[in-house]
Amino acid sequence: MSRARYDELKRKMKEVGLLYSTEGILAWDQQTYMPPRGSAHRAEMMAQTAGLAHARFTDPRIGELLSELEGSDLAKGEDTIEAANIRELRRQYDRQIKLPADLVEEFNKTTALAHEHWVEARRLSDFKRFEPWLVKVVSLVKRKAEAYGCEGEPYNALLDEYEPGIRIEMLDGVFADLRRGLTALLEKISGAAKRPDRSIIERPYDVDRQRIFGEAVIQAMGFDFQAGRLDVTVHPFCAGIGPGDTRILTHYNPRRLTDALFGSMHEAGHALYEMALDKAGNFGMPVSQAASFGMHESQSRIWENQIGRSRPFWEYFFPQAQRLFREQLGDVSFEDFYGAVNSVQSSYIRVEADEVTYNLHILLRFELERLLLSGELKPEDVPGEWDARFKKYFGMEVDRCANGCLQDVHWSAGLIGYFPTYTLGNLYSAQFYAQAKSDIPDLETRVSRGELLGFRDWLRGNIHVHGRRYRADELCRRVTGSGIDHKPLLAYFEEKFSALYK
Amino acid sequence: MSRARYDELKRKMKEVGLLYSTEGILAWDQQTYMPPRGSAHRAEMMAQTAGLAHARFTDPRIGELLSELEGSDLAKGEDTIEAANIRELRRQYDRQIKLPADLVEEFNKTTALAHEHWVEARRLSDFKRFEPWLVKVVSLVKRKAEAYGCEGEPYNALLDEYEPGIRIEMLDGVFADLRRGLTALLEKISGAAKRPDRSIIERPYDVDRQRIFGEAVIQAMGFDFQAGRLDVTVHPFCAGIGPGDTRILTHYNPRRLTDALFGSMHEAGHALYEMALDKAGNFGMPVSQAASFGMHESQSRIWENQIGRSRPFWEYFFPQAQRLFREQLGDVSFEDFYGAVNSVQSSYIRVEADEVTYNLHILLRFELERLLLSGELKPEDVPGEWDARFKKYFGMEVDRCANGCLQDVHWSAGLIGYFPTYTLGNLYSAQFYAQAKSDIPDLETRVSRGELLGFRDWLRGNIHVHGRRYRADELCRRVTGSGIDHKPLLAYFEEKFSALYK
Repeated sequence: MSRARYDELKRKMKEVGLLYSTEGILAWDQQTYMPPRGSAHRAEMMAQTAGLAHARFTDPRIGELLSELEGSDLAKGEDTIEAANIRELRRQYDRQIKLPADLVEEFNKTTALAHEHWVEARRLSDFKRFEPWLVKVVSLVKRKAEAYGCEGEPYNALLDEYEPGIRIEMLDGVFADLRRGLTALLEKISGAAKRPDRSIIERPYDVDRQRIFGEAVIQAMGFDFQAGRLDVTVHPFCAGIGPGDTRILTHYNPRRLTDALFGSMHEAGHALYEMALDKAGNFGMPVSQAASFGMHESQSRIWENQIGRSRPFWEYFFPQAQRLFREQLGDVSFEDFYGAVNSVQSSYIRVEADEVTYNLHILLRFELERLLLSGELKPEDVPGEWDARFKKYFGMEVDRCANGCLQDVHWSAGLIGYFPTYTLGNLYSAQFYAQAKSDIPDLETRVSRGELLGFRDWLRGNIHVHGRRYRADELCRRVTGSGIDHKPLLAYFEEKFSALYK
Repeated sequence: MSRARYDELKRKMKEVGLLYSTEGILAWDQQTYMPPRGSAHRAEMMAQTAGLAHARFTDPRIGELLSELEGSDLAKGEDTIEAANIRELRRQYDRQIKLPADLVEEFNKTTALAHEHWVEARRLSDFKRFEPWLVKVVSLVKRKAEAYGCEGEPYNALLDEYEPGIRIEMLDGVFADLRRGLTALLEKISGAAKRPDRSIIERPYDVDRQRIFGEAVIQAMGFDFQAGRLDVTVHPFCAGIGPGDTRILTHYNPRRLTDALFGSMHEAGHALYEMALDKAGNFGMPVSQAASFGMHESQSRIWENQIGRSRPFWEYFFPQAQRLFREQLGDVSFEDFYGAVNSVQSSYIRVEADEVTYNLHILLRFELERLLLSGELKPEDVPGEWDARFKKYFGMEVDRCANGCLQDVHWSAGLIGYFPTYTLGNLYSAQFYAQAKSDIPDLETRVSRGELLGFRDWLRGNIHVHGRRYRADELCRRVTGSGIDHKPLLAYFEEKFSALYK
């Protein structure tokens, strides 16, 4: 009886999942091949599909089925796939139905306009133009948080969207320790006598050869071109459309070798996760979805940083790069090249930051978001507070707000609560990498031979296959024996950069 | 009051139209960029979207609104946009609701399997493997025709899908005269002493340069790359996704110059029609759709043949082709090249046929379809009947059924009633071209200067802007003063090929 209800739930969620797949194709096409004049019509197509998906997910029958199943044996036994699906669907369903329709509509309308005003404000580096929109967005986000409800600070209600089950109180200590460790490390690096020469990778690099090189690398990572694609766009992302169809996007910079390369490895890291999820048997159900945004980010960052910026990786791939870019790299030594791809330097823009400073950028945003939401910080005071903290963490004065609080798209889009997942991803990635090295003693030797599939299999078996069966922090504990922890990331930085900067 | 109902109808049909747009993107992506392993999931996505569109179009409320509007002033005055929309929506709605759901399901299931068996049967040139599937398809198509109902032969019920309002009795005389004229012309050509040398265009032609050349040509035709795309696929088509988004596909043959070029011009001809329809104000309504399949085909064929294979066109574009393909064409004379792109020769395969023999291929299929549907021809007798008629029209023995009755995809897909639209398109194209030459006395001079936009504007103003406001045959009469007529096409052939073959 409850099996029949469970099967009905699966059928209904598959319908929702198919609509998400369709939305995914419409969005992917919009960012890649859609002719410019098709954009207004595309917005209508996407709104229609999103509306259909929402209507099917919030069908009261889903709520009935969940209530019935929650009382059944299928919901018992915490570790079964069925129990995980029921538990996680309940969370998703409740979030979907808790938002009143008028709030959703106002939120979508306001963020669409706020985005336009943000683009203009950033172009002119004029915060005042964006301020009234930030006021509106923060107020709407507060209303959202209230509608969801949560324990502790209202920020938790937003964070829960991206990191199910994670509360801000769990992060406080870890993030504070991380910030202290990072600022201390940055100070040491700034004082170092030896400085790598970044200009090696900042030369004209033929885009077609960049593509050949990047595709060879992600193929070595295990990206399956029969079940995926790599295309070009302005703002790269990964789209897990459905079984057999995972697409990644990159952006070639003809004057820097590493933007597209590390960008492709990053997105391919996301893609390997999507490709390994159980999308055939459980399509539309939570166990066919990644555990959290932070967990997803850990998979992209581990390939981009722990592998892509590592010594063993380049021992194998630097000679390949030299053959493809004879003129630019023929005379460059391995050590100089390895130094160049790992140079650390305070800078204004998050998306261009190195491994070390990146997390300071995130922590700054997270702190401001939290203060905005609690009301301790007023939107009008954001630039001043941003600049003061930036000076404290990075030792630099912000020259203009386009290089400061206006640089990121997230707030105009109402994405408050999202930033911490970037740093969670970095923390997890270091925890996983330390564990993988312990589980596979010759891991780095294998990487230095270009053998990356063993590592891919380790990630797949330990993380990917579980989907949303466990919460992210629990999954981390199952894999590494420890919850979220700042020490492995700091230890990884310490080891790598003390060698590089002496 | 009736205006409010009309607006409600428009809103509802816009929703249907948006779903068709989404289906269009899913199908386009499937044929261009989808990774191979995504095909099973894509089939499910497309079935879902098609189902949603069907459900919305057959919503009984649409029928109510139509009934109410049919009695109102808006339906009066035959030439208004509103009256045309109401009249044509009634036709489409009735067709949608007349098919019982179980027939639709059986039809879709059977044709999906029939397609696979056809692929295999064609590969092995073994008609017996396809025969049981042809039996099933013909029987289902007969049931469809009965469900639709019609006057005269059941074939009319199928033809009406593609050529609204056209009945077979209206074509009998025209098609018979055309067949006689074509076989007589072909006999004369076969007996001619002078034969053009096709090998000029059958050399290795660099695909990238073919692309550059083809894109220059369709840009000159007025194809708007801001509102459209040209991509590569196996079986080219044109997809009018929606306002500002019309996509065409082509297929490059590295050993023949003209396949992709004439293919691109053909699809761009379709695209110019789509681009000029009123998709902003009337999206989802019949007046934003092409008048018929035959009318659509007339727009592709007129660019491919009357323009693309003409002397004035090549007077401008041959020197360009020579500059791009110096090695292949540098020493070739204009006359030899013009002869090569117009060589006429009986051959087995329709899609590779020249202008003259093409219509004989169509007429043969149309005759067999009609006999199959009336029961005068049994599926098992198709190969014999095909071969006998082929011998009579083309003077050649069919060597194997893969080169005969198994060559085309249509019957396996249940597309019976579709073939005549190809020849209707050719007839219309000759009628329109004769009229355009009379309306624009210096048309050919302009074409010989590469000025193609005047002709595009003539097509747009006379044909495209009307959408489905008039039935195809009526539109033809409004533009040329005459209904469907075989004489302009035969006269065009006579003039062109008597000059070429003396």
